[in-house]
Amino acid sequence: MSYAVPGVRLGVARAGIKKAEHDDLLIIALSENTQTAAVFTQNAFCAAPVMVAKRHLELNRGKPRCLLINTGNANAGTGEAGLADALSCCVALGALLEISDTTVLPFSTGVIGESLPVERIEKALPSALGALQADQWEAAASAILTTDTQPKLRTRKVEIDGHHCVITGIAKGAGMICPDLATMLAFIATDAVIAAPLLDDLLRSAVNRSFNRITVDGDTSTNDAVTLSATGQSGISLERGSRATAEFAEALDAVMIDLAQDIVRDGEGATKFVEIRVVGGESEAACDQVARTIAHSPLVKTALFASDPNWGRILAAIGRAGIEGLDTAAVSIEINGVLIAEQGARAASYTEEMGQRAMAEDELQLRVTLQRGDAETRLWTTDLSYDYVKINAEYRT
Amino acid sequence: MSYAVPGVRLGVARAGIKKAEHDDLLIIALSENTQTAAVFTQNAFCAAPVMVAKRHLELNRGKPRCLLINTGNANAGTGEAGLADALSCCVALGALLEISDTTVLPFSTGVIGESLPVERIEKALPSALGALQADQWEAAASAILTTDTQPKLRTRKVEIDGHHCVITGIAKGAGMICPDLATMLAFIATDAVIAAPLLDDLLRSAVNRSFNRITVDGDTSTNDAVTLSATGQSGISLERGSRATAEFAEALDAVMIDLAQDIVRDGEGATKFVEIRVVGGESEAACDQVARTIAHSPLVKTALFASDPNWGRILAAIGRAGIEGLDTAAVSIEINGVLIAEQGARAASYTEEMGQRAMAEDELQLRVTLQRGDAETRLWTTDLSYDYVKINAEYRT
Repeated sequence: MSYAVPGVRLGVARAGIKKAEHDDLLIIALSENTQTAAVFTQNAFCAAPVMVAKRHLELNRGKPRCLLINTGNANAGTGEAGLADALSCCVALGALLEISDTTVLPFSTGVIGESLPVERIEKALPSALGALQADQWEAAASAILTTDTQPKLRTRKVEIDGHHCVITGIAKGAGMICPDLATMLAFIATDAVIAAPLLDDLLRSAVNRSFNRITVDGDTSTNDAVTLSATGQSGISLERGSRATAEFAEALDAVMIDLAQDIVRDGEGATKFVEIRVVGGESEAACDQVARTIAHSPLVKTALFASDPNWGRILAAIGRAGIEGLDTAAVSIEINGVLIAEQGARAASYTEEMGQRAMAEDELQLRVTLQRGDAETRLWTTDLSYDYVKINAEYRT
Repeated sequence: MSYAVPGVRLGVARAGIKKAEHDDLLIIALSENTQTAAVFTQNAFCAAPVMVAKRHLELNRGKPRCLLINTGNANAGTGEAGLADALSCCVALGALLEISDTTVLPFSTGVIGESLPVERIEKALPSALGALQADQWEAAASAILTTDTQPKLRTRKVEIDGHHCVITGIAKGAGMICPDLATMLAFIATDAVIAAPLLDDLLRSAVNRSFNRITVDGDTSTNDAVTLSATGQSGISLERGSRATAEFAEALDAVMIDLAQDIVRDGEGATKFVEIRVVGGESEAACDQVARTIAHSPLVKTALFASDPNWGRILAAIGRAGIEGLDTAAVSIEINGVLIAEQGARAASYTEEMGQRAMAEDELQLRVTLQRGDAETRLWTTDLSYDYVKINAEYRT
């Protein structure tokens, strides 16, 4: 079940970009005066559609009328020709809708380095337009998937002064997941009335608490993008600093954290969902450094896959995280509440059986205490399994 | 075949530390006045034997008489008890040889976080001492292995003014390989006469060109150590700045580069040997940053395993390497001489067949050109295969 967002219609189609048997094209049509904020990948090789979407969002002052999303081809590493291809799609859709092509934002995901099959996309546009309906969020969530095994759709109603507005969002992503200020593809919409600067702040703050806190494999995509569109059709107006805005922000955070965790749970080959919590650091950045070093360690990840409480690998990862003057004797590690290591060595109370019982769970919380200060962070990640290798070794075959 | 090093005797034994059926203990006895230099892991959680070896090397002013190496247990993450255990082994060996325990340097490798079985080691010492011979380098190379599948032994003769001296060294390592100023275990000896400061410089310079240029999985070990011992028994004396020293340094580099590459070739689950060469950077550090980001990308590594010329993943890795103001249009990628990408996109001359043919080789050179300056670097690494996951998921079972 998902709440439709008044002012937002979605339509999917099969363009046959990579495979013929899946929907691979999505149009999200936004009502007039909808305000949209977006964040994009920080990868220097950002894809052609990212460059075009950024430029168009500037030209239309955050009021695009259409998001055009394709899977099966990332249109990244395609140089000048890729830019022309992304623009062609916008022009074609603009012509069909009789709107300026600069009010179309293009998004692509899929294989890098191959030419976008523009003709196939243009041919499928009328069919996607014909399918536009407010109740198509489920179909949209499925149409944007690549190696994902599950659609990711989250929806909430926010009560404000006896009235309500809704927030609904979809996301895709399972591999090449290591957001850097922005991440993967996610499209979120609300019918609240939110002015551009506040909308942008709300989006950035929620991204920092959600998509920027996940990593599957440490690889940052060339095509990451998250958008938040406010149609305003609920009539509920959010002002900076109000209680209503705080409530809305909380609901938005929840939607985006749920979507981000959905991505981790659906991580390529993932058998574990792991929350890494680093506390007692001198700064959030230092905690984050430790959390990411653990999360990206192939040795920690394979031990997680094996449900092996091999805490020595966690210790080794903490030790190479680059924390200046780390007092190893102050470090302790807990897994799902079981104290495994303290004072930099195995805890006196710890037994291998306790560790094995804790690690057998599918959901793990790995808590590292540094005793250097009051800062803390959390990061969500997965294990490294045979299937991760399989999925990524066979991706193009 | 390996050259014995006059002044160096080696003896192995079976202490049954982890498994009963392999040699797991090695003593390297050094003649009086042998000068030894060493570099150790930069991991904050350095193991007990590393701490003891560092302290002893200082106390004996670079003139240890014995190196004592065990596999099967790293004696890391073992706190105060681990330090006492490492010291006990030195005391026991010192007593047997009637030398000070501070002239013994201990080295351990194996599982982290378990107590060192000191008694079993002490019991096996007489047997290892009884086996001491100058021609035991092969046996020594085998005794220090853990997940390695091949012993790593390299040897060279250096002609200087009609006389000659030798350099012989052994190494172990296959996983948790990402040296940081020092790496894994390697023991190298020569019969040249080299004073302490020059010996230290020669070692550090050679380490930077060899062990610090390899990575298997980006995980830096808690126990890494490399030693270089000069017994002086050839009578050939090396002075700073001489032509002879330059020739010796060249041979030493060759021995250490060969040992480092042996480790990569024997990398856990490795099916490819990959040299990453990044040229045209503004600094060596920047080139290194790009090379390491590529080498540690799970997506690049799985594509290498699949022999898939998925250069888009290489591009994405370069893009997230954190190079300020990277001009993506200036970047090109070659694999084994085949130009795959130029101006940040697929090369006009490139065909998928050319890429597949190049990638089918077991030895790959991946060359990235940045066009930002004259600096360059090279790094040796491997792919990420099912077997890497298998070896590390099953390591403690």
